[in-house]
Amino acid sequence: MYRTHTCGELRTEHVGTKVTLAGWVQTVRDKGNLVWVDVRDRYGITQIVAEDGTAQEVMSTLKTLGREFVVQFTGTVAARSSANPNIPTGEIEVKVEEVKVLNASLVPPFTIEDDTDGGEELRARYRYLDLRRNPVQEKLRLRNKVALETRKYLDSQDFLDVETPVLIKSTPEGARDFVVPSRMNEGQFYALPQSPQTFKQLLMVSGFDRYYQIVKCFRDEDLRADRQPEFTQIDCEMAFVEQEDVLNTFEGMVKHLFKAVKGVELEEKFPRMTYAEAMERYGSDKPDVRFGMEFVDLSDVAKGNGFGIFDSAEAILAINAEQCAVYTRKQLDALTDWVKRPQIGCKGMIYLKCNEDGSYKSSVDKFYSQEDLAKWAEKANAKPGDLILVLSGDLDKTRKQLNELRLHMGNELGLRNPNEFKPLWVVDFPLLEWDEETNRFHAMHHPFTSPKPEDMHLLDSEPGKVRANAYDLAMNGVELGGGSIRIHDRAVQSRMFDLLGFTKEEAEAQFGFLMSAFEYGAPPHGGLAFGLDRLVATMGGSESIRDYIAFPKNNSGRDVMIDAPSPLDNDQLEELNIKLL
Amino acid sequence: MYRTHTCGELRTEHVGTKVTLAGWVQTVRDKGNLVWVDVRDRYGITQIVAEDGTAQEVMSTLKTLGREFVVQFTGTVAARSSANPNIPTGEIEVKVEEVKVLNASLVPPFTIEDDTDGGEELRARYRYLDLRRNPVQEKLRLRNKVALETRKYLDSQDFLDVETPVLIKSTPEGARDFVVPSRMNEGQFYALPQSPQTFKQLLMVSGFDRYYQIVKCFRDEDLRADRQPEFTQIDCEMAFVEQEDVLNTFEGMVKHLFKAVKGVELEEKFPRMTYAEAMERYGSDKPDVRFGMEFVDLSDVAKGNGFGIFDSAEAILAINAEQCAVYTRKQLDALTDWVKRPQIGCKGMIYLKCNEDGSYKSSVDKFYSQEDLAKWAEKANAKPGDLILVLSGDLDKTRKQLNELRLHMGNELGLRNPNEFKPLWVVDFPLLEWDEETNRFHAMHHPFTSPKPEDMHLLDSEPGKVRANAYDLAMNGVELGGGSIRIHDRAVQSRMFDLLGFTKEEAEAQFGFLMSAFEYGAPPHGGLAFGLDRLVATMGGSESIRDYIAFPKNNSGRDVMIDAPSPLDNDQLEELNIKLL
Repeated sequence: MYRTHTCGELRTEHVGTKVTLAGWVQTVRDKGNLVWVDVRDRYGITQIVAEDGTAQEVMSTLKTLGREFVVQFTGTVAARSSANPNIPTGEIEVKVEEVKVLNASLVPPFTIEDDTDGGEELRARYRYLDLRRNPVQEKLRLRNKVALETRKYLDSQDFLDVETPVLIKSTPEGARDFVVPSRMNEGQFYALPQSPQTFKQLLMVSGFDRYYQIVKCFRDEDLRADRQPEFTQIDCEMAFVEQEDVLNTFEGMVKHLFKAVKGVELEEKFPRMTYAEAMERYGSDKPDVRFGMEFVDLSDVAKGNGFGIFDSAEAILAINAEQCAVYTRKQLDALTDWVKRPQIGCKGMIYLKCNEDGSYKSSVDKFYSQEDLAKWAEKANAKPGDLILVLSGDLDKTRKQLNELRLHMGNELGLRNPNEFKPLWVVDFPLLEWDEETNRFHAMHHPFTSPKPEDMHLLDSEPGKVRANAYDLAMNGVELGGGSIRIHDRAVQSRMFDLLGFTKEEAEAQFGFLMSAFEYGAPPHGGLAFGLDRLVATMGGSESIRDYIAFPKNNSGRDVMIDAPSPLDNDQLEELNIKLL
Repeated sequence: MYRTHTCGELRTEHVGTKVTLAGWVQTVRDKGNLVWVDVRDRYGITQIVAEDGTAQEVMSTLKTLGREFVVQFTGTVAARSSANPNIPTGEIEVKVEEVKVLNASLVPPFTIEDDTDGGEELRARYRYLDLRRNPVQEKLRLRNKVALETRKYLDSQDFLDVETPVLIKSTPEGARDFVVPSRMNEGQFYALPQSPQTFKQLLMVSGFDRYYQIVKCFRDEDLRADRQPEFTQIDCEMAFVEQEDVLNTFEGMVKHLFKAVKGVELEEKFPRMTYAEAMERYGSDKPDVRFGMEFVDLSDVAKGNGFGIFDSAEAILAINAEQCAVYTRKQLDALTDWVKRPQIGCKGMIYLKCNEDGSYKSSVDKFYSQEDLAKWAEKANAKPGDLILVLSGDLDKTRKQLNELRLHMGNELGLRNPNEFKPLWVVDFPLLEWDEETNRFHAMHHPFTSPKPEDMHLLDSEPGKVRANAYDLAMNGVELGGGSIRIHDRAVQSRMFDLLGFTKEEAEAQFGFLMSAFEYGAPPHGGLAFGLDRLVATMGGSESIRDYIAFPKNNSGRDVMIDAPSPLDNDQLEELNIKLL
């Protein structure tokens, strides 16, 4: 070992001990006959001091040290005359006797401090230096802890960690599969899994009873700030369970994680809400319930007054921003501009100020009397001083837009406290959703999700109305995870593939092994997968997952540090039996 | 829940309790008015009984049950009149009151028993049924436990679990890389990692100090029985350490695993042997030291007697098989045939029987007198009754061949007890090995391994003689893991790439990010990786890793259950900007 102690370990009880430390030079303060060096490692910072008695050669080496040099110091622990209360080692320092430079360092391209001067691109290119910064290391330590506590909890509940393969089969459905040419099987390809779904179901057929895995999954699609081409799931499955059992088990897991990792006690019983209700009240299947500002339907009080936009709208939905009647014209214009951005896509926004004096001021005053507007306010439960914001149009679109506006207002008004954690189970998702583009139904969750037994009779007549045994866990406006009770009957699975537009042959070629497995004693089963990246980011109070990944890719799916992906040699392509178009 | 208890849980203390069990039908015994059903799940087997008082419809449902049906039983726990001491639930049975078939089963293509009648191919195709068998589930439970205990141990030693990327950069060196075309970066490819080597080194540069990961790695090469295209490593790295520290840390880990998982206490201090000594004494860098039969060099007693094969041989090496002088002509011929198989490749084998009466009988009696042969026996420390087996020729080849023969004899003589575990550190590996085919040096471990400081002066003059700070942990003739102290100096790393025949430009293009990282304060570091598949198989007493993988691939790299790899649609290829040759 290059050290006897870490840089975070020494206390007053060590005074008089001879120690060797190794780490990075954080700062050097040189006062001529007196030199201080702060040396840093993962565990902390310790002050090294050289003074009058220090050997000349040690002194002169100290004077050559630069930031981020890797240095080994030997010396004796002494009490500091004036302690530094900000660091755990602040009561001691080490009087240096020997010093050895283990490795020099160029001046780093940005400062290795909690608040760095480096821009995003530069830090990405030198990720190994960015990773030296404390706030970044903290995030990865949090991730390490969450993963380990997840394992401990699931192990205590009899879940078995079983690794499923990474080189699997591509399916034409899997338009977003990454594929891998096989050298040994000419002209054939593996695919990387978007999830271990079929394998975990097979493990249930195999009687493994309870399975989990913390596993990399892959999706080749356009990336957004909170998506990565490779991401990590806490993937779980249980046999002989109903929805209630799955929900209780993972409610227990999430409560354990918050308690063990953050010391936070979540609600004893997580609230539940149907998908239909979540959409009606929040316009979102993952509502942030840390704050109210629920949707209000103004149709019956806002229609029929000759305001054409409302009269022709499928939906007229409002939120009440309390105490915001003081918003200036400029602020309201900014909000209107915000909803008109292409990412939101509104044509406009109507507001109603509920003035403190009991009068009303709206942007559509010429169509509505004070009495008319009072009805809006009553409907929205608005008090004097509140501000009502109204969007209208197609129901689905308006909900989506008003959800965005609600979250935006929540941010503006400081209602989304990153240290508050509000879980919500959203249940009874629809089984199918209609896709305008392909003109057919898609599975809302995935093709293996079971319809609710009480809705089975609608499968032929009104498939769009069939609800699934599917559920999501939302927290603070983020989907932490989701799952379903699966189909375990060959006939139902086959019917599901029909509904999704598979021919018998396609279904057999792609999922024959699963349907065949269902014929050999498949138990009822269900499960759930959490996005680990997102779970950890949420626990860390952040909306971006990228900081919680050691070596993330950028929005083009590139790792700019190692410069991947990159072109291949022709020889290499030839050996794989492929060429570029 | 479909059950109140598992099938392994009920004991006499439950007598009188009303319970519901769910599981698979193992057997049905139908005596007319008396029907027994053994129902099985992951936790055990419980006997269900229906007798005179049982409702008629329950009775008739029981009579329709077939093997592997999934059934739910409700009934009352009763003491058995004659207990079955072979199963933990053997003192009770459940008097059935209700029965529900949750899913029927076709007759499985092989029996779901500890000793099945299914052949390897059939079991691979129906892997989900093979996985129902107890011995297979045991192996995966062992794997689960080893992985979890590994994590607990490393966590207790301050190692952080950090995920490194799966989509990385391909290098021309990586002739065995699996590659992945990027849709978003036209004409460019990711590669799947053969190991997270460079990333874990960067984590050391980042100051993570101690890193581990249980991680999938990939190698596209011809497969042997103990290789898989995707395999799992326990990958570790430490900063500010020397070889001694790494060895001690992982010796601790392996001892913990054997104790916690198998209740086996390994030797307090694992023995160590240099590579040179291991090759000399066993002809292998992973010798099985559960038994002796060490190599004996017969050169000075067997040369010069006119036996041309020996006289012209670079090496004449022997092993002494104790008490095997009784081997018959037929047995000796079989051994000779065994070493002449193409996999071993000997031209022949010489034997010397040390008869009980003190006389000698060899296959080369016409060249050697009894006195000559006595010298062989003395050299080999052979006693009357022993059998000496001799191979000769080129040194490296002969060692390899005699190693195989030694292991074969060990198997034949029952000297390789699968319940005995003998670890051995092999140290001081050569840095480089000469490759006849490409006519240049290759890195024996990998290009990041550091030369021993005391051998640095040989780097230019005799690079083949330079020893590395590299080590392997062998056990029972298997390499469980290996690692090295790494280069952390840009200049040394650059010189290493020169030696390996990289141009400056190639080295920069492929590993520029690593060499650049070495300029910003890289600490001394080193590490090790264990093959999890092989570790678990060794702990399970098996030589084949395949049984310890839930969904293994066959020797052609195929998953025959899901039928992967498989051809892609032209549309899909086109979207990836590639086509087949």
